[in-house]
Amino acid sequence: MLKAVDEVKRVVGEEFVSLDAEDIENHGYSDWSTSNTTERPVAVVSPATTDEVSQIARICTQYRVPMVPFGAGSSVEGNFSAPHSGICIDLSRMDQVVAVYEHDMNVTVQAGVRWVDLNEQLKPTGLFLPMDPSPTAYVGGMIATNCSGTNAMRYGTMKDWVVNLTVVLPDGTVIKTKRRPRKSSAGYNLNALFTGSEGTLGIITEATLKLAVIPQETSVGIATFPTVGDATAAASKLIRAAVPLAALEFMDDVQMRIINQNGGAGGRYWEEAPTLFLKFTGTTSGIKESIDRTRQVLASNKGEEMVFASTAEEVDNLWSARKQALWAILAARPQGTEIWSTDVAVPISRLAEIVEMSKEESSSLGLFSTVLGHVGDGNFHQAVMYNPKSSEQYKAVKACVSRMMRRALEMEGTVSGEHGIGIGKKDYLAEELGEPTVDLMRTLKRSVDPYWLMNPGKVFNEK
Amino acid sequence: MLKAVDEVKRVVGEEFVSLDAEDIENHGYSDWSTSNTTERPVAVVSPATTDEVSQIARICTQYRVPMVPFGAGSSVEGNFSAPHSGICIDLSRMDQVVAVYEHDMNVTVQAGVRWVDLNEQLKPTGLFLPMDPSPTAYVGGMIATNCSGTNAMRYGTMKDWVVNLTVVLPDGTVIKTKRRPRKSSAGYNLNALFTGSEGTLGIITEATLKLAVIPQETSVGIATFPTVGDATAAASKLIRAAVPLAALEFMDDVQMRIINQNGGAGGRYWEEAPTLFLKFTGTTSGIKESIDRTRQVLASNKGEEMVFASTAEEVDNLWSARKQALWAILAARPQGTEIWSTDVAVPISRLAEIVEMSKEESSSLGLFSTVLGHVGDGNFHQAVMYNPKSSEQYKAVKACVSRMMRRALEMEGTVSGEHGIGIGKKDYLAEELGEPTVDLMRTLKRSVDPYWLMNPGKVFNEK
Repeated sequence: MLKAVDEVKRVVGEEFVSLDAEDIENHGYSDWSTSNTTERPVAVVSPATTDEVSQIARICTQYRVPMVPFGAGSSVEGNFSAPHSGICIDLSRMDQVVAVYEHDMNVTVQAGVRWVDLNEQLKPTGLFLPMDPSPTAYVGGMIATNCSGTNAMRYGTMKDWVVNLTVVLPDGTVIKTKRRPRKSSAGYNLNALFTGSEGTLGIITEATLKLAVIPQETSVGIATFPTVGDATAAASKLIRAAVPLAALEFMDDVQMRIINQNGGAGGRYWEEAPTLFLKFTGTTSGIKESIDRTRQVLASNKGEEMVFASTAEEVDNLWSARKQALWAILAARPQGTEIWSTDVAVPISRLAEIVEMSKEESSSLGLFSTVLGHVGDGNFHQAVMYNPKSSEQYKAVKACVSRMMRRALEMEGTVSGEHGIGIGKKDYLAEELGEPTVDLMRTLKRSVDPYWLMNPGKVFNEK
Repeated sequence: MLKAVDEVKRVVGEEFVSLDAEDIENHGYSDWSTSNTTERPVAVVSPATTDEVSQIARICTQYRVPMVPFGAGSSVEGNFSAPHSGICIDLSRMDQVVAVYEHDMNVTVQAGVRWVDLNEQLKPTGLFLPMDPSPTAYVGGMIATNCSGTNAMRYGTMKDWVVNLTVVLPDGTVIKTKRRPRKSSAGYNLNALFTGSEGTLGIITEATLKLAVIPQETSVGIATFPTVGDATAAASKLIRAAVPLAALEFMDDVQMRIINQNGGAGGRYWEEAPTLFLKFTGTTSGIKESIDRTRQVLASNKGEEMVFASTAEEVDNLWSARKQALWAILAARPQGTEIWSTDVAVPISRLAEIVEMSKEESSSLGLFSTVLGHVGDGNFHQAVMYNPKSSEQYKAVKACVSRMMRRALEMEGTVSGEHGIGIGKKDYLAEELGEPTVDLMRTLKRSVDPYWLMNPGKVFNEK
């Protein structure tokens, strides 16, 4: 491995190869993740160009050294852990917006561009990339995990925004998946194969992405409900009524209580009840009509406290609770505890049931947990606080999460709606899809990466 | 091969294996296609279940017999030709709607279900599958070619509607790509790998598809423009103004003249000028607002005759010209001529240029040709009429189409927006993506289909 590191130094320059213990720790371990491993990479390499990445890959293949691509480090399923050590390839220096094609409504960026920075830069064009995962996330990682977030209701997931990818294959070959049409049925959909492959097939170094038009206006509303089931039933009704929603989010009573405890987002006291957060975009009169229709649907479906913003300030205030959810959880967690955060997705008709069962079970452990969900996608997150030093608590949470996964599968759902499989959910993937399907993934992986060097130990194991 | 046919007879029953010359001709040749081959399959087999398809695949692999999946036969790039002969697997008996999950807004169907029949059956639920290729098309073929049509502007392409697929792999293994969540980031996106793979990786026998809510109301409008460039520029402005359009179609002056010659769709005389066809869906007031905004944008972008429907009858009348476009071409073509129909897609900013250049070139041949386009996707179709008995004309059209492909590539576009590669566009695919990218596709294909038996000779050749 160290021989490989030496050769890599010649490619990128000594100053961009770090053997520093702290650097390595920061690239091999994450507080956000529940799936850390004890192994660490031997070095962190920071290439600046696709060509450098290609040369690194060639060297790693020659010396049979695992390659672990690293973006912003915001993933939570151990996606960038280095269980087989190897070289961590940090893409943060590849942070250039290569070209903005305003008239075609797309943009070419390097993998290390932060989506938040990209959208800031794009503002004058009136266009934006509508995915909203962690604000720290890089485009490369967003593609590698097929991220989404609150905007998925309207805009889909990351895979829907990829026009083409530049990918370095394990042997150093550089490919481009497509040219730049918005629509294509020419050959295999390599965009979609690499999107969500978690760096196990190649390293994404550049991407052309579709952009959406920034909505003229935005408004939001909230509504509380007697039970989780009432909230999700009302959400379903809204969807079926074809009310054009930009987002449709859910937070449970505990999550709302935490918001209040954390100082009450938006300067208001929040009902501590199952709550829907709704976002509307479009023209003034379009939004008005959508809100009127939403009021009607919710009112006749047990919607209780309903508040709709009528000023820009109110928009921010009402949405702030949703925005601060994660920070409120962090602030509220008891000293010394860690958060086990996980997500599943089920067919929408089963969402209420699994949320209620999961809540019940985690509270029966005597542990503090919250639920928030992207209702429109049947996707929800549960965060359980536990003391990592208590092996009893750790085991209990692990078992609880495991049962949540199995329930999602019994309901024909998936063990990962938007975080990927990483290390943490490998065993469940085989349960979800069956061995023959995972075997097909292995076959594809092996054909592209015969020495199993690309982010090994993720998504599934070599057989 | 005949030994394999005998064994297949035992699987599906003698009556479902046809050796009839006419049957074989109908399954190996198409008037719609410009890419027919002289070879034919040795037999047409009609299985009724996934298990039967699996057994057929096992037999074909044992005897190394090519398998050519066949749906409705509406594809146009030779996608179901049998250049290496083999057994044609006709999926028309697999025509069952397996389950409608109304509350989850999805449906499970066998591959041989016609989308038109499916939507008829779904009507009482208020849901529909929003892709609209040829009305004869089967769901299986729609997935295999990643079809789209006029609704792609709003609803995307077929890949965006697939929840899971049941696929028979070459060796007979049956896999299911996903369970039934609307959103997932669990493992490789096999849905997208099979969607658009044109039967070269496996045979899709069953699919679960997302459904959309049937819009409350629909309206349409048309506008004419001095030039193609003016029409596409106006279309771009509409998109950037975020006017919510359900469809945004273009037809050229020749196409409009043909409509008039064919009896004038919708009982009206049509201006013989570049024309945009617009569709609006939503609520009454939402549509009204969209039409008002559209009028303004078009009027300030050289929109001339503008007509917007105000009754349901006018909606049908105005859209009828778009709907009848293909039939009008068929009716108008000079006796003894055939149609060379092709499609490309380019970044939207280049659409006018390529349409105008392509029109100019085909008319310089002295041949009759029309253009219609899905402007919102930068995708357009050109149909050139030629006498297939004149090898001179054939060569001229072929060269003309070839230059259109190259122009699309020069403009960073694709040689196929929605028809796939089939046989007809294989050479262009390598030009479009480069050998390393097509090599990666070959690697993937070989790993899944080592004997190259699944629809061989399509998309790319074995090296």
